[in-house]
Amino acid sequence: MRSVNIGLLGCGTVGRGFVELLGRERERIRGVAGVDLKLTRILVRDIAKERPGVDPGLLTDHALDVLDGDCDVVVELVGGTTCAGAYVRRALAARRHVVTANKALLASDGADLFTLARENGVKIGFEASVCGGIPIVRALQHGLAGDSIESISGVLNGTTNYVLTRMEEDDLGFDDALALAQARGFAEADPSLDVDGHDAAQKLRILAELAWGPPASVKLRVAGIRDVTRGEIESATSRGAVVRHVASARRIAGGIELRVERRELPIAHRLASVKDEHNTVVIRGRAVGEVAFSGRGAGSLPTAAAVMSDVIELSRTLHAN
Amino acid sequence: MRSVNIGLLGCGTVGRGFVELLGRERERIRGVAGVDLKLTRILVRDIAKERPGVDPGLLTDHALDVLDGDCDVVVELVGGTTCAGAYVRRALAARRHVVTANKALLASDGADLFTLARENGVKIGFEASVCGGIPIVRALQHGLAGDSIESISGVLNGTTNYVLTRMEEDDLGFDDALALAQARGFAEADPSLDVDGHDAAQKLRILAELAWGPPASVKLRVAGIRDVTRGEIESATSRGAVVRHVASARRIAGGIELRVERRELPIAHRLASVKDEHNTVVIRGRAVGEVAFSGRGAGSLPTAAAVMSDVIELSRTLHAN
Repeated sequence: MRSVNIGLLGCGTVGRGFVELLGRERERIRGVAGVDLKLTRILVRDIAKERPGVDPGLLTDHALDVLDGDCDVVVELVGGTTCAGAYVRRALAARRHVVTANKALLASDGADLFTLARENGVKIGFEASVCGGIPIVRALQHGLAGDSIESISGVLNGTTNYVLTRMEEDDLGFDDALALAQARGFAEADPSLDVDGHDAAQKLRILAELAWGPPASVKLRVAGIRDVTRGEIESATSRGAVVRHVASARRIAGGIELRVERRELPIAHRLASVKDEHNTVVIRGRAVGEVAFSGRGAGSLPTAAAVMSDVIELSRTLHAN
Repeated sequence: MRSVNIGLLGCGTVGRGFVELLGRERERIRGVAGVDLKLTRILVRDIAKERPGVDPGLLTDHALDVLDGDCDVVVELVGGTTCAGAYVRRALAARRHVVTANKALLASDGADLFTLARENGVKIGFEASVCGGIPIVRALQHGLAGDSIESISGVLNGTTNYVLTRMEEDDLGFDDALALAQARGFAEADPSLDVDGHDAAQKLRILAELAWGPPASVKLRVAGIRDVTRGEIESATSRGAVVRHVASARRIAGGIELRVERRELPIAHRLASVKDEHNTVVIRGRAVGEVAFSGRGAGSLPTAAAVMSDVIELSRTLHAN
C-alpha cells in the first residue's frame, strides 16, 4: 500500500467537502485503488475560524508550510488567479502533481501551467473545473478520444439555469429568482460571472480546447440573462417552449466559435429538460453521434468528488513509478 | 512518434467500423496522442468475401498469423466465447494488451482473463462492451472513483427500447415492431438475447462489478419484453406514462441485486425520454447525486469509437514504457 500525502490549499465550500469526503471514502479507496490518501496540511486564511470536522492540527496560514512540506499531490481550492497561480507554479516546479477546480486560473494561465507541468514531469488534474461532478473532462480526454468532435453544447451554469427554471415554474421575476438562488446557495454574493455568461464561457473554452487543442483564433459571443423578462419566459411557454442559457462551441475557418446566449427551445429538446441547478453537456462526435452527460454541475460534495477522482488517478501514477 | 501495431480479430459490423474509423482518424490521433496506429493483420473466416475499404493484403484466416505476429495490441471483435476466449488468453500470455467489445466473454470468463492480464503485466480495455459509444466504463473506473456508488439504473438495450418506442409511437404490435428493428439493423437475426433481457443483464453485471467489485452473491431477476401487449402500452399512455425495459442494480446484504424488467414510468422520468435505439445509464453516487450518460449504445461506428479510445489509451502506456 502506497501512502500518498496531500497538501490542501483552501478550506472553503469545496475544500470542506473534500475533507469530509476523504474521511468517509479513505478506506474504500485503499481497497479499490491501493493508495492510502493522507491529508498532511491545510492552508487557510484564518486559523481561528470554526471548521467542524476539520482537524485543527493540520491548519496553517503559511502557504509554504504546504508547498514546501511533505506532500505528493497539491490540491488547489483557494480560487482566484493571483495567489492560486503562484502556488500552483511553485508546486509544479517542485515536481508535485496538482489538482484544481479553478477554471478562472486555467482560462488565464492554463497554457503556461501545462507547459510547466510537462517540463517537470508532473500532471494537472482539472476534472472539477468544469461541471462539478459530471466527468466530462475525462470523457473528452479519453472516452471520446477515438472520434473527431464536431460540436459541444450544453447548459453549463447552474445559477442561470436555476433562475430561468424558477422564473418559468414559480412565475418569479429575475431579481426574485436570483435572490432565491442566492438563498439556496447556488449563486455567489456577486453573481456577475454566472449571470453575465462568463462562467459558462470559461467552461466552454476548456471543453473546446480538450476537443480541438489550442485554437488559432477564438470568436466569442457572450450574452447573459440579466435582461430576461417574465414576458419572454411566458411567451416561450405559450409556444410550448422554454428559455435556456445555452453554451455552444464549434470549429470555424481559422479557429473556434464560442457562444453563450439565451435560446428558446422546444420542450422535446434535450436541453429543455435540464432543470434548476443541473448541468448537461452534449458532445457530438462524427462516429458516435450525440453523447450527453448530465448531473450536478456545482456544490461542495459533487465538486469534491471530482477533485478526489483526480487525486486517486495521480496517486496511482506515483504508485507506478 | 511511437508506432503501434494492431492485430484485429474479426471483421464484421464493428470490425469494419474500426477499419473505417482508423483510416479517417489516424492522422488526428498521431497529432493529439503521439501514437501512430498501424493495422498489421486482420483475422476473418472467409478471405474471399468482398469488404469495401479493407486492404485484402491484411486478411488471414489463421488466428496465429495475428496472435503470433508483430502486434502490440490485439483487438478482439469475433464475438462468442469459445474461440474469442482462446484468442484473448493467447494474446495476454504473449504480453499483448487486448481490447474487446465482447460482453458475453467478460460475463463468462472475465475474472480469469483479468487475472491473466495482471500476471502478464498487460491490460484489457472493454469500454465498447457496455453501451457502445457512451464512455460509461471509464466513468465508473475513473471519473466517479472518488465517490461511493449507491445504485445503477438505465435503459441498456437498444433493441428492446426501439421495439417499445415503436409500439408506443406507431401503434405497432410486438412482432411488427421487432421486424422493423431487424429491418433497421438494430436487432440480430436471433433477437433472444436482447428481447429476453440477458444482454441488458450482462451489461448491468459488468457495470455493477466496476462499481462494487466482484460480488459475494448475485440475486438476479431478468424479465424480457416478449409478452408485452399493445394493451399494456396504451394503458400506460392513457395514464401519461410510458413502458421502458429498465435494468437496475443495487447492493443488498451479502451481495448485489440485478434486475431487468418492464416498468411503467411517468413521462417526466429521466428514462422515459430515452427513445428508439438510444441508451441511458444513471449512476447515483453518495456525494455526486445522480449523473446520467446518454447516447447510442450500439452500432458499427459508435462501438468502433469506443474500441479506438481503448486502443489509444493502451498505446500511450506502451509509449511510456
